[in-house]
Amino acid sequence: MANKVSVYRREHFNAAHRLHNPSLSEEENERLFGKCNLPHFHGHNYELVVKVTGEIDPKTGYVVDTKILSDIVNQHIISKFDHKNLNLDVEEFKALNPTAENIAIIIFTILRPLLSEQLSLQIRLYETPRNFVEYPAS
Amino acid sequence: MANKVSVYRREHFNAAHRLHNPSLSEEENERLFGKCNLPHFHGHNYELVVKVTGEIDPKTGYVVDTKILSDIVNQHIISKFDHKNLNLDVEEFKALNPTAENIAIIIFTILRPLLSEQLSLQIRLYETPRNFVEYPAS
Amino acid sequence: MANKVSVYRREHFNAAHRLHNPSLSEEENERLFGKCNLPHFHGHNYELVVKVTGEIDPKTGYVVDTKILSDIVNQHIISKFDHKNLNLDVEEFKALNPTAENIAIIIFTILRPLLSEQLSLQIRLYETPRNFVEYPAS
Amino acid sequence: MANKVSVYRREHFNAAHRLHNPSLSEEENERLFGKCNLPHFHGHNYELVVKVTGEIDPKTGYVVDTKILSDIVNQHIISKFDHKNLNLDVEEFKALNPTAENIAIIIFTILRPLLSEQLSLQIRLYETPRNFVEYPAS
Amino acid sequence: MANKVSVYRREHFNAAHRLHNPSLSEEENERLFGKCNLPHFHGHNYELVVKVTGEIDPKTGYVVDTKILSDIVNQHIISKFDHKNLNLDVEEFKALNPTAENIAIIIFTILRPLLSEQLSLQIRLYETPRNFVEYPAS
Amino acid sequence: MANKVSVYRREHFNAAHRLHNPSLSEEENERLFGKCNLPHFHGHNYELVVKVTGEIDPKTGYVVDTKILSDIVNQHIISKFDHKNLNLDVEEFKALNPTAENIAIIIFTILRPLLSEQLSLQIRLYETPRNFVEYPAS
Repeated sequence: MANKVSVYRREHFNAAHRLHNPSLSEEENERLFGKCNLPHFHGHNYELVVKVTGEIDPKTGYVVDTKILSDIVNQHIISKFDHKNLNLDVEEFKALNPTAENIAIIIFTILRPLLSEQLSLQIRLYETPRNFVEYPAS
Repeated sequence: MANKVSVYRREHFNAAHRLHNPSLSEEENERLFGKCNLPHFHGHNYELVVKVTGEIDPKTGYVVDTKILSDIVNQHIISKFDHKNLNLDVEEFKALNPTAENIAIIIFTILRPLLSEQLSLQIRLYETPRNFVEYPAS
Repeated sequence: MANKVSVYRREHFNAAHRLHNPSLSEEENERLFGKCNLPHFHGHNYELVVKVTGEIDPKTGYVVDTKILSDIVNQHIISKFDHKNLNLDVEEFKALNPTAENIAIIIFTILRPLLSEQLSLQIRLYETPRNFVEYPAS
Repeated sequence: MANKVSVYRREHFNAAHRLHNPSLSEEENERLFGKCNLPHFHGHNYELVVKVTGEIDPKTGYVVDTKILSDIVNQHIISKFDHKNLNLDVEEFKALNPTAENIAIIIFTILRPLLSEQLSLQIRLYETPRNFVEYPAS
Repeated sequence: MANKVSVYRREHFNAAHRLHNPSLSEEENERLFGKCNLPHFHGHNYELVVKVTGEIDPKTGYVVDTKILSDIVNQHIISKFDHKNLNLDVEEFKALNPTAENIAIIIFTILRPLLSEQLSLQIRLYETPRNFVEYPAS
Repeated sequence: MANKVSVYRREHFNAAHRLHNPSLSEEENERLFGKCNLPHFHGHNYELVVKVTGEIDPKTGYVVDTKILSDIVNQHIISKFDHKNLNLDVEEFKALNPTAENIAIIIFTILRPLLSEQLSLQIRLYETPRNFVEYPAS
């Protein structure tokens, strides 16, 4: 991809969650997820980095206008997740365990159709400064 | 305090909370706290910096052994707050709104009697990298 | 100030400037400010930390609502400085050298009357991660 | 590339710029670039991360000596861009809009011939902590 | 790898080292490594980021449990390197120069057999915030 | 100090050390300092923040020129400590345990006479991002 440039935009949201697979027993959930499964939820300051790769538009010198990219992310992701309880308030996690891996895939799935097919997309999500994930893997 | 040194130790915990004053109406809570009042909670990666000030022990070259300080903070604060819901799981916030200000005061109140009277104590608490508080004010 | 709490809010703006004292000669300006005096300007991502100290309002658990504090800073500082040339676009620096020290004092002077007299105010301004200032000194 | 190691070196420079395509009208520039097009420039603390990939020299244990890499970057990039106005002072941007994408490509183009052909090169450039680019895309 | 997710876990250790190739003369070592070769050692706060890539286990929503990953890294790497002198205390560096490149390869070599063959592994090692390496190169 | 401004300059150095009080027995040293006492040393990336407080010079708009401050710190501290073994290579620590507290006091003692008496001085020293000290205490 020697002629392509990647553009990154970082955003953040605060949310509560618990790790819980509703199709498993309480004991199994507790064994698998420990204190992350505690019933009253805990939370994180999630940091989201959206990576968009493509060719530069010679008119603007941009691959993508980060202002527009930020607006898309805010309208479709931040407004949906910020100051929310992922398990209770976000439709996608009613039957899906909100691990960092699954949250990254959901964010990718929401954003992918909103971007030009010429642009490729990757999501990095920090649950804490020491635990983070990337989807799709590169 | 020209002969004194301050020693800082940083720890962290993840917790859910909502801003809510149980003695006010729902409308008043919503007006005062907006999305921070949403009923299903949200959460943060709290970063806690404990500052201890005193004279150096000439034998050790320490004001306080940060390993011991870390153990005290972990035993009395982190184990109590980490992966918890502050409103529901922490006794002190059952009747007290868990704003960053109030959390810092509660942490100070718990730690103060556990440290030598010769040492002074200050708490800095980051709710996010952009919002943080300090108690007592210096 | 053992009953008071300090609340910090971090904001940022990007601006161009050059260090230049219009009452001195070109040679003197160059000698004093070196490459910071270059005529076509350079720039920074300024990080601004506003510290407000006061007593907690028992109704809200806040010293100050950081959302309101952020709105004040954005309306009166960020909108005035962000993506601007401090020397050419900001009235206060037409005759005043925009060093970090002077920018911090100007920010303090603008914000001070906008906050309750019960609250004390301190400004920390990062010109780069390695150079920063605080006003008033504590 | 299982036998290769990547070595990263981070440097920084401060510069003024404005986004402006001289071949477009004023109205078009304003529409495309908004406040980034303001005529008196703004600026950034750019953080530059140079990534060099290759095989380890068994004699030194280095892919590249980061001291030498840093010297090359300082001599050919930092001295050229630091405390400058990219639009007015840097030859390469007299006809090229200094977006982060274009700055990264110019940096790559300058550094590429200065490194051994055995080493591959990638540039990451932070315009702010929240906006950054990478060239070539990986 | 469009169906795979990467999971990152960050750990740290403090260690002393000097850059020294025992098969070269003193003069050659000094010429190659300068102050990094000084005989009494210097040291770093190493930051280690372990990246594990694989498919999500639908039962847990994890590629790998970062708690288990952290335990493996602590038991096999941190306990071996932390508060040690890499040249004198770590078997692997008795005949191998402890450059960041070589340390990353040793860490990879230790961890690789401890992880499922279904998972791929990459090591990023920060010697300082401005110098870091990655193995294998991607 | 309402008319004064504080100016901060951040520098760094890498050094080896061990915590050891030569006037105590081996057993006592081991009991007091644990793995920090291990005989072959360990090390840190120390981050040093020098805070200088005073009145603004109306001619320059500076309390102190951070370029000059940086030169003083580099000449008298960094060149003395960087890539060194504090216990073996630095005269001041031959009989003094190089805890963060003591290193901060030594740095203060070296720098204090090099600055104008009109300026006050405070040292902050990060041994790691989670352990740091300040002298004199404020």
